[in-house]
Amino acid sequence: MRHVLAVTVHNYPGVLNRVAGLFSRRGYNIESLNVGTTDNPQFSRMTIVVDGEPEVIEQVCKQLHKLVDVIKVSDITHEPAVNRDLVLFKVTAEPAVRGEIMQICEVFRLRIVDFGRRSLIIEATGEKNKLDAIEDALRPFGILEMVRTGQVSMVRGRK
Amino acid sequence: MRHVLAVTVHNYPGVLNRVAGLFSRRGYNIESLNVGTTDNPQFSRMTIVVDGEPEVIEQVCKQLHKLVDVIKVSDITHEPAVNRDLVLFKVTAEPAVRGEIMQICEVFRLRIVDFGRRSLIIEATGEKNKLDAIEDALRPFGILEMVRTGQVSMVRGRK
Repeated sequence: MRHVLAVTVHNYPGVLNRVAGLFSRRGYNIESLNVGTTDNPQFSRMTIVVDGEPEVIEQVCKQLHKLVDVIKVSDITHEPAVNRDLVLFKVTAEPAVRGEIMQICEVFRLRIVDFGRRSLIIEATGEKNKLDAIEDALRPFGILEMVRTGQVSMVRGRK
Repeated sequence: MRHVLAVTVHNYPGVLNRVAGLFSRRGYNIESLNVGTTDNPQFSRMTIVVDGEPEVIEQVCKQLHKLVDVIKVSDITHEPAVNRDLVLFKVTAEPAVRGEIMQICEVFRLRIVDFGRRSLIIEATGEKNKLDAIEDALRPFGILEMVRTGQVSMVRGRK
């Protein structure tokens, strides 16, 4: 099962290494991971998406808690949350088909962030399913390159 | 100096651990890192933002190249590139000030992705500077939580 973990850590060298080590020692492949700064420069926030049996993920969470630089671990898989991913697509766009690509951008409300003579870079944000649909729509034109940030998640509302 | 590295890796368990290890052994703190899938499910793409002397970063790149699961390493710090980061802000928003927050969203073209009775979740994408300006604009209202994907970068145009 696909799990989403929100992990707050001290912003020290080596923390990422220790966190990643916990997963790799168990042979778990992380689907996506990102670390970014938070409103407090002392702390970073990771969002980790990983596949595994619930009991084992629970075990991993407990071990994460034991790491000295880890402040907080939450498995937010079942919480009502906003899940977002940012993708940049570089797509072949000869003048003859450019109009058609721009129609797709309009429908999905995408932003064109680079306009080259023969290619475009398109920015998309949303949930995984939406981004997969966009990828399918753009593929026939030729995707030259694709970069994805991996998911970030935030629990809705206020506790 | 702030360096941006684009690293293509095999999508195997343990790769992230080995890459992160290279940086932590040298005491480098990674400012941001993300790993996401690419158009080819066999490969993942990392964008790593790290601070360090140019000579040492060059050395790190060479060592990354030697890792068996690393396909390609590019230091794209000086390339013309699209740099994007996605941030979710959860902001206190009592009805009395909600209008003012919505004005900020309009000016910066932000998306409100959750509307609670006393808080909003706002999605922003852009370059680091723009996102810092947005954070400054929202701070007076009370930022309850902030999650950032960390930067992804794509070189402009076609080679």
